[in-house]
Amino acid sequence: MNAIDNSDLVLVPARATLALINDALVAEGLPAADAARCAELMTEADLTGADGHGIFRLPQYIRRLKAGGFNKHPNITVKKTAPATALVDGDNGMGHLVMSRAAAEAIAIAREQGTGFVGVRGSNHAGPAGLYAEMPTAHGMIGIYSAVANANHMATWGGADHLLGTNPLAIGVPSGAGPLVFDMATSIVAYGTVKKYALRGLTMPDGWFVNPDSGEPITDPKRSGEGMLLPMGEYKGSGLALMIGLIAGVLNGAAFGRDVVDFNADDKSETNTGHFIIAVDIARFLPLAVFNAEVDRHVRDLRQSKRLPGVDQIRLPGDRRIECRAERLRDGVPLARALIAQLDKMAAELKVKPLAQR
Amino acid sequence: MNAIDNSDLVLVPARATLALINDALVAEGLPAADAARCAELMTEADLTGADGHGIFRLPQYIRRLKAGGFNKHPNITVKKTAPATALVDGDNGMGHLVMSRAAAEAIAIAREQGTGFVGVRGSNHAGPAGLYAEMPTAHGMIGIYSAVANANHMATWGGADHLLGTNPLAIGVPSGAGPLVFDMATSIVAYGTVKKYALRGLTMPDGWFVNPDSGEPITDPKRSGEGMLLPMGEYKGSGLALMIGLIAGVLNGAAFGRDVVDFNADDKSETNTGHFIIAVDIARFLPLAVFNAEVDRHVRDLRQSKRLPGVDQIRLPGDRRIECRAERLRDGVPLARALIAQLDKMAAELKVKPLAQR
Repeated sequence: MNAIDNSDLVLVPARATLALINDALVAEGLPAADAARCAELMTEADLTGADGHGIFRLPQYIRRLKAGGFNKHPNITVKKTAPATALVDGDNGMGHLVMSRAAAEAIAIAREQGTGFVGVRGSNHAGPAGLYAEMPTAHGMIGIYSAVANANHMATWGGADHLLGTNPLAIGVPSGAGPLVFDMATSIVAYGTVKKYALRGLTMPDGWFVNPDSGEPITDPKRSGEGMLLPMGEYKGSGLALMIGLIAGVLNGAAFGRDVVDFNADDKSETNTGHFIIAVDIARFLPLAVFNAEVDRHVRDLRQSKRLPGVDQIRLPGDRRIECRAERLRDGVPLARALIAQLDKMAAELKVKPLAQR
Repeated sequence: MNAIDNSDLVLVPARATLALINDALVAEGLPAADAARCAELMTEADLTGADGHGIFRLPQYIRRLKAGGFNKHPNITVKKTAPATALVDGDNGMGHLVMSRAAAEAIAIAREQGTGFVGVRGSNHAGPAGLYAEMPTAHGMIGIYSAVANANHMATWGGADHLLGTNPLAIGVPSGAGPLVFDMATSIVAYGTVKKYALRGLTMPDGWFVNPDSGEPITDPKRSGEGMLLPMGEYKGSGLALMIGLIAGVLNGAAFGRDVVDFNADDKSETNTGHFIIAVDIARFLPLAVFNAEVDRHVRDLRQSKRLPGVDQIRLPGDRRIECRAERLRDGVPLARALIAQLDKMAAELKVKPLAQR
């Protein structure tokens, strides 16, 4: 991979990014409580290093709110379809609000029934998958979350039509030392990473993107529109994207495959985004304290294990989130100058204070 | 990858392999119904192309039965821990029997509650993950299955201690045209594939195995004992193996990490193998016929999609299983001569008819 030049990054306090997100959403007509919830989750994405999912997305969300692509006053409904399952209809509200409601429902069901499966339709882009897989962990539960991504950046393995998203899979498990949160795209990298590379003028490594006609690699992220992302682990990532897409999409009456709206290109059409979340209540299997201590023991074994030559540290799922969170709370969130310029322009249009005045 | 020479393979009718498995297990003291169930599932593994999980495992299972490593008369118990969850204790019975019981329980719970999560402990190697993820599909349900593998062939990403298994993840989804079954190891290949390469004297490609001291690739499968398998998608496969291992192992009081018994090296110790299976009843979300038709439509889109240069056919999860099953029912199961020699020796020792007389 090319060495990354960080000289274009500016550190901005998280309270400033939070406040701008909140004020921009309110200025665009979101109710105060909803704007605050979106700002909180988007800032959590920024703090935990999901750079493609935090304030980076704000100009796009504002554009979409302006264009009428989001329902600013959704009637989010929860239909219990069986004792341990529910179907949430987001009524085209912002994904963060819809998924917050769905995660709360999965947790409430699992509290009663031991496990809960909640499917979601009528939602929208909800930020990083890890956010939602982590939610059950605060209640002593395991969380499993997935979604149909909001654009098809992949083909099926061997194919050249954009029919699959980077459909993420995230799993959260509590431990004594705090939650382990695993969050992966089924593509070789997340599309947000490609967007970040484009914004910063970086070159992508071979093997991320290919031209569907020639099969040749594309390394200029600005030309990513001509190509498609490759799946993680070849046919494995492609197969997993399909299977979880059927569960997050088709099962819930949400969009999948050919029906997915590319929300990067279309600010108006309802995306009918689908997700699912599963919560499992650990205490139904063993005391949470015993579970936590056992996970801690295994994590310690892994951390202290012998390392391959050239490896200075073992990293486990969620480590980067935790380190990043501490660093960024202290030092600020690194934003590219090009993003700050976009945000300043947006702030001027919305007549809210720019980042520099916060 | 090296071209594979198939001249050492002999086609053997599936009824012959099924009968040998059944008779060998009975000869070694398994009750008739249990032997029949194991033979049926192991033959299904052979028919569907999971070559590392069918009759290939029989000599090892027989050795383990002889050594007292399996409980031949297990009292498999199901404890309902909440309305939608259960914990199955396999009492050290053969994994196929334990997981058959657990899958049936998950299906029964999902029928009542919409979804069911069943954790398993006290089990053993149960064959290919796809077998169990597929079971709910016959009942109009989605199946999600995972397990802690029966030997630690991987390290955590960057590590050099054998602390993680190739912990598989399998997902089954019904469709009008038959179930889609996705089954992947979290390692770059399944260890059964390495065993098959060793048996047949084939060379492994670079990138499958490394020497933990030097980090150098190992390509001779007979030297795999000196090395470790690499995870699928680098840190992704390693992180996923950890997370699903915590759910299949720690949650159920089953072995994980340092506590895993290498059942290739140890025929006696209880493995306390853990699994989990989730079933979700589709009819609680939409009519099964509508779901099946929608999946069929998306599958058709994927199959008919444009192909990358040099690709002659789009393959989806489960395609190989279905083709393989039809081919092998017709032509027989391809067994390596070296395996047939092992099976003949075993048959002679057990005083049962060898394959050639069936």
